[in-house]
Amino acid sequence: MTLPRVVIERCQYLAECSEEPGAITRPFATPAMRCAQERVMEWMRDAGMTVSRDNIGNLRGRYDGAGAATLLLGSHIDSVRDAGKYDGPLGVVVAIAAVQRLHDAGRRLPFGVEVLAFADEEGLRFGAPYLGSRAFVGSFDTDYLERTDAGGVTMAEAIRAFGGDPTRIADDRWSGERPLGYVEVHIEQGPVLERLDIPLGVVSAIAGQSRFEITLTGEAGHAGTVPMAQRRDALVAAAAVVTGIDAIARTDERMVATVGKLEVDPGATNVIPGRVTLTLDVRHPADAQRAAATKAMLGWAQEVGQTRNVGVTVRPVSERAAVACSTHLTSMLGRAIGGDVVAIASGAGHDGVYMSEITDIAMLFVRCKGGISHNPAESVTTEDVAVAISALGRFLELLAEQ
Amino acid sequence: MTLPRVVIERCQYLAECSEEPGAITRPFATPAMRCAQERVMEWMRDAGMTVSRDNIGNLRGRYDGAGAATLLLGSHIDSVRDAGKYDGPLGVVVAIAAVQRLHDAGRRLPFGVEVLAFADEEGLRFGAPYLGSRAFVGSFDTDYLERTDAGGVTMAEAIRAFGGDPTRIADDRWSGERPLGYVEVHIEQGPVLERLDIPLGVVSAIAGQSRFEITLTGEAGHAGTVPMAQRRDALVAAAAVVTGIDAIARTDERMVATVGKLEVDPGATNVIPGRVTLTLDVRHPADAQRAAATKAMLGWAQEVGQTRNVGVTVRPVSERAAVACSTHLTSMLGRAIGGDVVAIASGAGHDGVYMSEITDIAMLFVRCKGGISHNPAESVTTEDVAVAISALGRFLELLAEQ
Repeated sequence: MTLPRVVIERCQYLAECSEEPGAITRPFATPAMRCAQERVMEWMRDAGMTVSRDNIGNLRGRYDGAGAATLLLGSHIDSVRDAGKYDGPLGVVVAIAAVQRLHDAGRRLPFGVEVLAFADEEGLRFGAPYLGSRAFVGSFDTDYLERTDAGGVTMAEAIRAFGGDPTRIADDRWSGERPLGYVEVHIEQGPVLERLDIPLGVVSAIAGQSRFEITLTGEAGHAGTVPMAQRRDALVAAAAVVTGIDAIARTDERMVATVGKLEVDPGATNVIPGRVTLTLDVRHPADAQRAAATKAMLGWAQEVGQTRNVGVTVRPVSERAAVACSTHLTSMLGRAIGGDVVAIASGAGHDGVYMSEITDIAMLFVRCKGGISHNPAESVTTEDVAVAISALGRFLELLAEQ
Repeated sequence: MTLPRVVIERCQYLAECSEEPGAITRPFATPAMRCAQERVMEWMRDAGMTVSRDNIGNLRGRYDGAGAATLLLGSHIDSVRDAGKYDGPLGVVVAIAAVQRLHDAGRRLPFGVEVLAFADEEGLRFGAPYLGSRAFVGSFDTDYLERTDAGGVTMAEAIRAFGGDPTRIADDRWSGERPLGYVEVHIEQGPVLERLDIPLGVVSAIAGQSRFEITLTGEAGHAGTVPMAQRRDALVAAAAVVTGIDAIARTDERMVATVGKLEVDPGATNVIPGRVTLTLDVRHPADAQRAAATKAMLGWAQEVGQTRNVGVTVRPVSERAAVACSTHLTSMLGRAIGGDVVAIASGAGHDGVYMSEITDIAMLFVRCKGGISHNPAESVTTEDVAVAISALGRFLELLAEQ
């Protein structure tokens, strides 16, 4: 069987490790995760790696090189609820395949390669994402240990039950010399590559993100008796806010802005909406542009509030700065792909956000069907996986030539 | 105690008849309704009326006149959930007060006066409004008898338990000669009189109403990864629909249009909305204008759908034609009020909609605080009630002079 075919089958095989029958749901530190880790460890060993597991539960497979330097590869093997097969696992399995090729050829590089299979990136179980990479770089917040899951189990208890020591997570932080880089293969989770009809792209940056909750407070009233001119309709105001946000977002093709949730109170057919609460999520690979756009959007909301005589309150929910990918590693990835290379900013967050604290990062995006992710319909082709394995292999060779 | 004060107190007294402690909730054919009816019957008798109850449960208090002709007055004494004190009861209690004045003066008019206290107008218990007036005019739909309330009790069982015979409702229809008219006193349920700083207004018409459910179907996607240009965001489209509906409604000051309910699917912060369902309620005192506006609004929705590449489906929910008030009776009400009289179209439905099937109708609106109704905050002043009782009394005299 060809290596690309093996990669696809392994992703399918990992999909069997789930805590929900008929669906893929693989949270942090669960039997489903143990199932997945047993398989991944076996594949790592088959590829000639020595495998260890740290206290948070990350797998680290090392394929030694001629020198002491290390290149990090990897992704995460946890999932969202009712997930697809590829978001996370593909990056781990392709990395293992690239090492397998070296191993099969009896080849050692001038540097060691470590494949990381992070124990948590999605944050499904404890609502705190990136546990794996945070622990790896020494940015794990020990307050998290007291968080409880839906069943009341604390994170500390979960880690202990999984075989780790929650008091020793800090010991696991990367303590060697600065790695050569961290390179992650991931499905695109967007439609750009599919629309361009190409299998691979490189990532220019992981977008920064600002989240807000906006509440518009007007006045509820009888839908039949309050004249239009006397209304303070919170939904009409919210609608103007939504269309304005959309228009501002469209002024910059690298920006995305989304109102994903909008709730109307009281929400009855014959009552003028008195209050609307909506969420705003703005992402841009450049922090300055994100800040300027966010300011414009919130300013617009206030303007609408004044025009419509509706109160507007804004609650900042979270903010995350953009992380630039290394131009050096990314251009090398581009040479490994060959031809005209498309650079895409990743709107989704990735472990690279934390990995950037200790090393340069780069990412390789693989075309996925319909741009769909976080959904059982996630799909990649064996042909595209073949191209990805080759590109990653060439990247290793280019890095070895330096 | 003055009569206006008695009216206010009686409305407060009826508020004690409720099926929810601390709130006013008085559905059709319940112990709360029986409580209210006992009080109303007593007040009717005190005012010299002979009282009967028909099979649906309407109270009919008759104050005989010199001739056989009959003027109908009244309103309903059921309520919505967590209601105010005045929507319905005020009209019944003011009508009784007007008769009380005649009775106290030993005066008989050339026509009889019948005060009706309808058993159901709001439709709270069985989701079918106007049961009282429908039965009175012979438009009661016997299919309704099989409807069940939240506890599984059929309407037929409820009527029987309340003392009526559900098989004989048709016998109760008005069978005398055409009444002189039906005149209802009601709180305005809107802010017009308060803004104009006047206690009373007449009603020009009860607006017709069209209701629709509009569904916009776009494509859900990751809020971080799908570029704006490739989105089919159902909420952005819905927002354009809502603002367009508002703009069209504002082109005609007699029109109101409301999107009261709007639901976003999946409704998560980081997911582009794939589907939005919203309700549209359009009211206008002139049917042709309502039809034209509704067409324009639904046309706009389709246009937005095409521009935004979002599917738009429209489900008509209900339609009710406008009912004009009698110009004859209304001008007489105006003369009874005196001075410059404000005519308001009622955006809310009233029993007059059905009463118009057997007679001319007219309505007198009483200013209510903040235009608020269907809410415990409903409020009217004793002074305004005094003006209303006087106006109704003068109206009776004007009608007697004819």
